Amino acid sequence: MAETLEPLERLTDMFRKLDGVGKKSAARYAFCVLNFSEQEARDFAEAILAAKTEIRKCSVCCNITTGEKCKICESPARDHSIVCVVEDPRAVMAIEKTRQYNGVYHVLHGTISPMRGVTPDKLTIRELLARLNNSAVSELILATNPTVEGEATAMYIARLASPLGVKVTRIANGVPVGGDLEYADEVTLRRAMEGRYSIN
Amino acid sequence: MAETLEPLERLTDMFRKLDGVGKKSAARYAFCVLNFSEQEARDFAEAILAAKTEIRKCSVCCNITTGEKCKICESPARDHSIVCVVEDPRAVMAIEKTRQYNGVYHVLHGTISPMRGVTPDKLTIRELLARLNNSAVSELILATNPTVEGEATAMYIARLASPLGVKVTRIANGVPVGGDLEYADEVTLRRAMEGRYSIN
Repeated sequence: MAETLEPLERLTDMFRKLDGVGKKSAARYAFCVLNFSEQEARDFAEAILAAKTEIRKCSVCCNITTGEKCKICESPARDHSIVCVVEDPRAVMAIEKTRQYNGVYHVLHGTISPMRGVTPDKLTIRELLARLNNSAVSELILATNPTVEGEATAMYIARLASPLGVKVTRIANGVPVGGDLEYADEVTLRRAMEGRYSIN
Repeated sequence: MAETLEPLERLTDMFRKLDGVGKKSAARYAFCVLNFSEQEARDFAEAILAAKTEIRKCSVCCNITTGEKCKICESPARDHSIVCVVEDPRAVMAIEKTRQYNGVYHVLHGTISPMRGVTPDKLTIRELLARLNNSAVSELILATNPTVEGEATAMYIARLASPLGVKVTRIANGVPVGGDLEYADEVTLRRAMEGRYSIN
């Protein structure tokens, strides 16, 4: 006899579509929305629509932007001959925070994963190769995550980019700053010895 | 030089308003929305507005409903002389799931908490007292959470309801089913001995 309220169920279902949100969290979020003011609820709904309609991919690097090109691709202060390949826009933000990198980016929007049906043509690899062919790129830094899928994607791109005469590098694996050598796994430690390495 | 996208920031800020959502989770959710289809984003926005506009408080028990009265208050099969007082609509759902309780409810929408500025008049205690005065209620079951604030709220309501000649009870504390006596704290164990108790 427990009453299920259709609007509440619907909202809970939408929250469940978010990464890492389970049944209980989704219900909690839906109840939070009920406690929002009318204005807050309207703002929330508008923020979702605005994010979806106003944000698109940069025509050069495929990073998210509100214009036709992102601020980084438009900047004359950046070195457009160095391209750093990352999995998603969050990686761009992470690297930008270091304030050390002055090149540009290429955002893949995923990694190759046959298990999850993500084939190379679902990523922006075609756009990357077109970029390498049409502009003077001297170095391609592969900064996908050091996971099985990230490594495989990096290897795949390296194999395609090497014949084009561009220098291809991979970010170094190593002991994280603040970490302890004693607790680093063997693979990480071995990689830490090697530093940034050339794979072509 | 990290580009902050205003629509993305705005959406992240909205997600942060949800209970238990921090900076990192909010950003992750906002990026999820970017990966939604246009239709999904529209559905999400509409679900928020619908939940806010279509769901209101039952005129009798203050539980959430889409009509004027909730299904439980409208049902002739329920015993309207037993009223179970709970903190929020989720507690109603939890009790309904047991399929054991045949009375009706009263939803407080919170607990008294002077620290957080929640005084008794912010809850639906006035509506509860009006209900006790105007209809034949034989038992009031106080089912607020067994926390400091839940207990204090139960005691406050008990003191107001007792002079009206209604039997006031409190749900039993005890060892949870599936739990182990060895690991139960002393207070819980002592309460488990007592079972449901009358406080007037």
